Amino acid sequence: MRVPLDRNNQTPLYRQIQDFLRSEIRSGALAPGTRLPASRAFAASLAVSRLTITDAYASLESEGLVCSRPGSGTYVAAAQPPVPAHQEPAADWPLWQQELLGHGWLPTQHELDQLAATSAHAGLISFAAGLGDSSLFPVKQFQRALHEVLSRDSRAALGYGDRAGYQPLRSTIAHILAIHGIQARPEQLLITSGAQQGLALIARLLLRPGDVVLVESPTYAGAIDLFRSLDVRLAGVPVDDEGMRMDLVEEALRIRQPRLIYTMPTFQNPTGTCLPLGRRRQLLALADRYNVPLVEDEFVGDLRYDGTAPPPLAALDPGGRVIYMGTFSKMLMPGLRMGYLLAAGPVYDRLLAYKRVDDLASSSLIQRALETYITIGRYQAHLQHACQLYRRRRDAMVAALRRHLPEDAHWRTPAGGLFIWLRLPRGLNSDALIPFATEEGVAFAPGALFFGGGRPQPYLRLNFAEHPPETIAEGIGRLGRAIARGLAQTAEPQMPHAGADAEEQSEEIRADGG
Amino acid sequence: MRVPLDRNNQTPLYRQIQDFLRSEIRSGALAPGTRLPASRAFAASLAVSRLTITDAYASLESEGLVCSRPGSGTYVAAAQPPVPAHQEPAADWPLWQQELLGHGWLPTQHELDQLAATSAHAGLISFAAGLGDSSLFPVKQFQRALHEVLSRDSRAALGYGDRAGYQPLRSTIAHILAIHGIQARPEQLLITSGAQQGLALIARLLLRPGDVVLVESPTYAGAIDLFRSLDVRLAGVPVDDEGMRMDLVEEALRIRQPRLIYTMPTFQNPTGTCLPLGRRRQLLALADRYNVPLVEDEFVGDLRYDGTAPPPLAALDPGGRVIYMGTFSKMLMPGLRMGYLLAAGPVYDRLLAYKRVDDLASSSLIQRALETYITIGRYQAHLQHACQLYRRRRDAMVAALRRHLPEDAHWRTPAGGLFIWLRLPRGLNSDALIPFATEEGVAFAPGALFFGGGRPQPYLRLNFAEHPPETIAEGIGRLGRAIARGLAQTAEPQMPHAGADAEEQSEEIRADGG
Repeated sequence: MRVPLDRNNQTPLYRQIQDFLRSEIRSGALAPGTRLPASRAFAASLAVSRLTITDAYASLESEGLVCSRPGSGTYVAAAQPPVPAHQEPAADWPLWQQELLGHGWLPTQHELDQLAATSAHAGLISFAAGLGDSSLFPVKQFQRALHEVLSRDSRAALGYGDRAGYQPLRSTIAHILAIHGIQARPEQLLITSGAQQGLALIARLLLRPGDVVLVESPTYAGAIDLFRSLDVRLAGVPVDDEGMRMDLVEEALRIRQPRLIYTMPTFQNPTGTCLPLGRRRQLLALADRYNVPLVEDEFVGDLRYDGTAPPPLAALDPGGRVIYMGTFSKMLMPGLRMGYLLAAGPVYDRLLAYKRVDDLASSSLIQRALETYITIGRYQAHLQHACQLYRRRRDAMVAALRRHLPEDAHWRTPAGGLFIWLRLPRGLNSDALIPFATEEGVAFAPGALFFGGGRPQPYLRLNFAEHPPETIAEGIGRLGRAIARGLAQTAEPQMPHAGADAEEQSEEIRADGG
Repeated sequence: MRVPLDRNNQTPLYRQIQDFLRSEIRSGALAPGTRLPASRAFAASLAVSRLTITDAYASLESEGLVCSRPGSGTYVAAAQPPVPAHQEPAADWPLWQQELLGHGWLPTQHELDQLAATSAHAGLISFAAGLGDSSLFPVKQFQRALHEVLSRDSRAALGYGDRAGYQPLRSTIAHILAIHGIQARPEQLLITSGAQQGLALIARLLLRPGDVVLVESPTYAGAIDLFRSLDVRLAGVPVDDEGMRMDLVEEALRIRQPRLIYTMPTFQNPTGTCLPLGRRRQLLALADRYNVPLVEDEFVGDLRYDGTAPPPLAALDPGGRVIYMGTFSKMLMPGLRMGYLLAAGPVYDRLLAYKRVDDLASSSLIQRALETYITIGRYQAHLQHACQLYRRRRDAMVAALRRHLPEDAHWRTPAGGLFIWLRLPRGLNSDALIPFATEEGVAFAPGALFFGGGRPQPYLRLNFAEHPPETIAEGIGRLGRAIARGLAQTAEPQMPHAGADAEEQSEEIRADGG
């Protein structure tokens, strides 16, 4: 039998053979009962390894197309299975499944994925992503680290390992945190499967359905989704140029009686604001007075381009008030799914217990490779490089916005992080802008996502870190044209819309499902 | 400056340098204000790379012991930080933390970890583990797969990837499931961070505090912990020689009105029983009649040593009744943290939504490497080898039990899986046996763990798959001596204890916390 093989094709050879034989069987060219060639001879005739033939035959057997008789060979099956229809069967789901259809919580973040998918279209420039520039990922070095770890630790790298996380990695993280003035001991650190899992563990431990969480408004869409999945209500505190407004925090603590405060004090997502030292102290004092745990999500605290950093809340914590969340995803490789929590006091053991019931432990291999890769020197060098690059890109975006956007569009120049939060000119919201932007070939994260979906918002979030300056200039040019077209189209009737002052972006987070 | 370096030591060179300098600074040998050698010259004099020195200095700086002045050099800090005490500060935790101390849920599985830790003691033979033999792990092949994936996919292997899991891996799993008669389409499969996460997602989606879950009694300790963490009550259905007793399932469905049935029909953990086809059909019919979702945890369904396998519940499912949980952890490498769910119908999208809020996605790199490593042929070859090996070990353990244990100890020979469930002779429970067993140098998983902790049980679980036959023979010999000593000691007074019939192991699972 001659099988046309394409050795330059991405499809493995065994699948090419499997596909060929399947179509021969389906077409009847290979009749039921036909004996297939012996694997050794067949492999030799095709110049492939015998394992390739064995794999192809085993796959066909799993499809029910052939059957092997020990000591005799492999035969085309007498009764062929029906060709799979690849369609959902007519809905005859059990009642409990049908009831789920009414129960409507689905994540807002899903929309961001769809935006990311459209950005794969040729020519579209997307500023919608939540990450930095993936070309900074040190793939080769990490590949070496993985290789080293498996050569050194062998099976030990593939067991469950320490449930709290690989001890040497926790030591390295403690050293990195010390740079930020945070005194952390390895036994206060818990490695999580990304920062998202860290927040999920905290929320499940400390919140019950109906509880209230205080968040910035707007805030991270993934946190909104998480809290909604737990039937937790959100109380949003508006953000001004200096982050969360402390006058409103106290009022919210008194009236809404939250069980948790979730905040990104440094280069907040999506607004990019940074809470100054005075407000940080106030926030800690308020949380203490009202006996509310503070969760500090320091997702891009390292990425500072101007000025000096106020200390993290965790560095100001007199003890056990703040649970600090860190991640390597934004800095290094999101696909590694590695983050960590820093928690002092009795809460630590309970978070560890929830980690156990959630997924037992995070990948030991990835933790060891990360530990091998990350030394303090390397971390700082990587950081320095990223900051230089992203500062230039931020400046490029600001310059392009000044050039291409109408005067009554409003933004602040963030001192760090990844995002510019843009308020559109009066009369336009970001949902209405999407069709024009798509036509012009540019994408962004619409503001509604960060308010929990629903009502269109006059805001949008732009990622300035992902693309080089020339792409940024081109993309913002397109955005400018899209805005001009949007304004022309929607000149009348005027959309209802928040006022021009930054203080007025006090939309309430919707917590009742999209 | 001369630094004693040990290049054969596991401690990285930069840490050796850091440790040396720290002790010199702490001792006063390097006085405050002293300028440390320039990194280039120092590196040359020690014959290390300059990065090594930079790392050592940066680490010391993060400890507050030195400070660098740009353009000038690195100096011993003027004010030295206090030596860290490495003790918990006097408890002055905020009130919300102190309240956690009263709120007592902590996982039972923690005890299994401690048992695993003691098994690392020289000479102790432990049958307590939940896994197979780690020496079967194909470390070298997996190392090659990782290398191939990073060379082929580069950064794409390190992004978030498809939130439901890497599509080609889902196709491979669909092929593997077809071997077991399960018709699965890749879009019905959801990759999870181990099977534990799969169960956690199901539980969080379908259960609310106070709901009842029907489980086998005894059952997997990690499931008991998970359900407790959600304030869910357990209704345990006793297991006889053929698994869950169907007469009692119907009664429990009527009276306890569970919202979920969680079952391991094939080689149940810990009893090793296998539900026959008739009972499987009954269970499906009952679940359908009472409109209760069925979760089938097929954690070792592949590891069969005798007879033929009844089809999984998922293969008998007319559509959307069963959520099937699989894992690679037991077969391959637990530290990879890879499992999967198979779910048809509206429940799939909701499980995916919970996956997203839980940890966004599972590691893309590990999924790709697994896909590269696992072909059907390889999977079947690995499985065949494991089955041959484990069958011999099971037989060795059964022979040793017959030789060394008193006549009124009771066990069944399981047809597959990893465990033998042993009932101790009348008058002895497994908690009382532990001190004698430890003295004799043998460990096991005490039965109470699988009933939710608390009351001592006359049962214990033995893992027969982890050790070679000669180790098994020696370990069971020790167990026999420990039992003899335990019986002599506790001859009077007699412990209250279930009768001799297998049907009588109807202890109720405790669901109210340990």
